[in-house]
Amino acid sequence: FIKNTLDETNPADISTILLEFDTEESRYVLDVLENEVSAEVINDLDEDVRSKYLKEFNTTEIAAMLNELDSDDAVDIINELPLKDREEVIASLENKEKAKNILDLLRYEEDVAGGLMAKELIKANVNWSINQCIEEIRRQAENVEKIYSVYVVDDQNILLGRVSLKRIILADDHLKVKDLYDDDVISVETYMDEVDVAEVMRKYDLDAVPVVNVQGKLMGRITIDDIVDVITELAEEERQMMAGISEDVEEDDSVWMLTRARLPWLIIGMFGGLLGAQFIGVFEDDILLVPAMAFFIPLITATGGNVGIQSSSIVLQSLASKSVFDDSFLKRILKVLAVAILNGAVIAGIVMGMNLILGQDIRLAIVVSIALFNVVLLASFMGTVTPLVLDKLGINPALAAGPFITTANDLLGLLVYFTVAHFLI
Amino acid sequence: FIKNTLDETNPADISTILLEFDTEESRYVLDVLENEVSAEVINDLDEDVRSKYLKEFNTTEIAAMLNELDSDDAVDIINELPLKDREEVIASLENKEKAKNILDLLRYEEDVAGGLMAKELIKANVNWSINQCIEEIRRQAENVEKIYSVYVVDDQNILLGRVSLKRIILADDHLKVKDLYDDDVISVETYMDEVDVAEVMRKYDLDAVPVVNVQGKLMGRITIDDIVDVITELAEEERQMMAGISEDVEEDDSVWMLTRARLPWLIIGMFGGLLGAQFIGVFEDDILLVPAMAFFIPLITATGGNVGIQSSSIVLQSLASKSVFDDSFLKRILKVLAVAILNGAVIAGIVMGMNLILGQDIRLAIVVSIALFNVVLLASFMGTVTPLVLDKLGINPALAAGPFITTANDLLGLLVYFTVAHFLI
Ligand SMILES: [Mg+2]
Ligand SMILES: [Mg+2]
Ligand SMILES: [Mg+2]
Ligand SMILES: [Mg+2]
Ligand SMILES: [Mg+2]
Ligand SMILES: [Mg+2]
Ligand SMILES: [Mg+2]
Ligand SMILES: [Mg+2]
Ligand SMILES: [Mg+2]
Ligand SMILES: [Mg+2]
Ligand SMILES: [Mg+2]
Ligand SMILES: [Mg+2]
Ligand SMILES: [Mg+2]
Repeated sequence: FIKNTLDETNPADISTILLEFDTEESRYVLDVLENEVSAEVINDLDEDVRSKYLKEFNTTEIAAMLNELDSDDAVDIINELPLKDREEVIASLENKEKAKNILDLLRYEEDVAGGLMAKELIKANVNWSINQCIEEIRRQAENVEKIYSVYVVDDQNILLGRVSLKRIILADDHLKVKDLYDDDVISVETYMDEVDVAEVMRKYDLDAVPVVNVQGKLMGRITIDDIVDVITELAEEERQMMAGISEDVEEDDSVWMLTRARLPWLIIGMFGGLLGAQFIGVFEDDILLVPAMAFFIPLITATGGNVGIQSSSIVLQSLASKSVFDDSFLKRILKVLAVAILNGAVIAGIVMGMNLILGQDIRLAIVVSIALFNVVLLASFMGTVTPLVLDKLGINPALAAGPFITTANDLLGLLVYFTVAHFLI
Repeated sequence: FIKNTLDETNPADISTILLEFDTEESRYVLDVLENEVSAEVINDLDEDVRSKYLKEFNTTEIAAMLNELDSDDAVDIINELPLKDREEVIASLENKEKAKNILDLLRYEEDVAGGLMAKELIKANVNWSINQCIEEIRRQAENVEKIYSVYVVDDQNILLGRVSLKRIILADDHLKVKDLYDDDVISVETYMDEVDVAEVMRKYDLDAVPVVNVQGKLMGRITIDDIVDVITELAEEERQMMAGISEDVEEDDSVWMLTRARLPWLIIGMFGGLLGAQFIGVFEDDILLVPAMAFFIPLITATGGNVGIQSSSIVLQSLASKSVFDDSFLKRILKVLAVAILNGAVIAGIVMGMNLILGQDIRLAIVVSIALFNVVLLASFMGTVTPLVLDKLGINPALAAGPFITTANDLLGLLVYFTVAHFLI
């Protein structure tokens, strides 16, 4: 009974339910399911949960499940297995074509088009008739869950174009593929970064995109469901970077994992704070003279932090949307400085007014406002340049919109403030 | 010549090119294009650029373009027109069915399923034969760019299931829709929030999802390309919230817009800083006594800020992935506190050690570490509860992972630090 109910349930729902079970119960459920369903269930699990389950199965059992999955998903799972098991699993695959496809796909990095594509797709030779084409679709369709377009290739497997299923259905029988296909097909190359693939599919509203190698040969196909996962993961990564969380954790992970993910940036921030303390220490005499100087430390560091993160996030936005910029680097910086001058002037002005109203010493009020203005300028500059530099270095630029920039700007702000104060008071 | 080249170019590319042109040049390009192409170009533009162009056209011209668009996109554009022009544009639509569809769709909020769906879809009556079904597909297919599934309804237009185009092609002629269709269709209701629609489509790997009203009648269809846009926009909104940017701006917007988007949170942060200054002022005598107290202000505020943002972002993650939590609120908070105690102990411990090594006064060292530990605890608590409360209030919880929480935690940190210091020194 359980089996029948579950076989009818969507695998994605079973995966969600499994999270509530312990390993033994889950194992029981997975055993009871058809291979086809349990394969999908395993495939739908989050990576860190999945690795736990995979340990429970031997290589033959894993191979039986992989037999039922698309090659892209099968490769993802194989990549999670211990090295020694991988060959064994591939050797145990019943479907030899799948084994070959998997070996093919294992060559690619996970985060490029080659690592996202599946071998399952429907292609037709440009010289075929429509009837031959439909015959071939019938033959290939068993292995291909969703067809999307039929890709048209020449005898050398060079991608020439695509023809939609709709067009094939609506076509006259005596026509040939040649007469029907659209040669304006958008494709991506195997080594294209996943971020760029996602941007291409978003921009052109694609459901699937063919992947070609440098010679233009059709190598595989990327479907939009996998790109939706890529986009979701990239957003999650960015959020983690901006929040200073150094591992992929969720609220339901263990206390130990959560702590480990959070400590690195807290410790870096802490050393920044200690350095700041040393730094203010240099000006101990000034503080003794004018203790009110200390009052404005949080104002200075908070403003630097806020401005820095705003600036970085605007650059992140440009990087994410791959905006075409004719603007030179200089022009960009000049614009940033213009915005900073406006923001800085307003903030410094209000603070000046408030300090005078509140009866603060006028010299200190002037010092605070001058420092604030300069902090806004410097933080804007830092916040803009840092993500650009990180991006050039191949580091996720979202790092710049997190504790990294706040820590740097705290120190920068203190430097500016106490230097100005030292000379003007 | 220009016309021919452009008509062959993908509309999405023309949209990108238009951004480089001034309004007059763009107007010329749009005039020269076929209505079908210029409609797609206008549709692909970013909202704020589009509104500029729309002003250049009269209602008849706009109606001519809307005629070529899917109903979901046409409604989006109509929503951007001045109220007085809307009726006129709808009345000028040549295609009366499109006009009816648009009026239908105008009833829905933009951010629910009804506001995302298009009326264009292919449906088949459950009692039809396969041949009737293919006939109908041929008839309807002209208005439907991509077919995805054929939706199966009864005589009352109640959604019963779906059948894939693949299945129809592969089916024997003598079968009926009844024999072929899959009744396990996943659908969403018209008033479902766009975030939930996106999550359903992501979870079940859907390319399109039928939208039904409360009676189960088929009202429209949402396609994955529009959901990809929703996901991208939500991520962008979250980034802006976390960075304290209060309007949807990009780097290429005007200096004035950029300044206006950034000032609100900078000013709030500034008032936080001024409040902090007032607050530290209360302890002026303590600072005169032990000026080294001031050294650790940045350490305290930075730690509070970092911890607060980390905590909030972990809650955001749970909210975004709609994790099913059996965990009670209490259990969640206890876990947060456990993590905080570990983090706090490590940070406080290291700072204690460093201060002793650096020869800091031992009483001050103790005060700083006690304060730090408590700040970590409080900031964790605040960082966890704030997004949950905002979410309950219907406010975007990402607000809690930005300057809001840093400002609050700066003040909280100062309060804890100076209170502890005042009583222990
Ligand atoms: Mg992969
Ligand atoms: Mg799009
Ligand atoms: Mg896939
Ligand atoms: Mg998948
Ligand atoms: Mg994850
Ligand atoms: Mg996890
Ligand atoms: Mg700060
Ligand atoms: Mg809409
Ligand atoms: Mg998925
Ligand atoms: Mg649409
Ligand atoms: Mg679209
Ligand atoms: Mg935008
Ligand atoms: Mg804009």
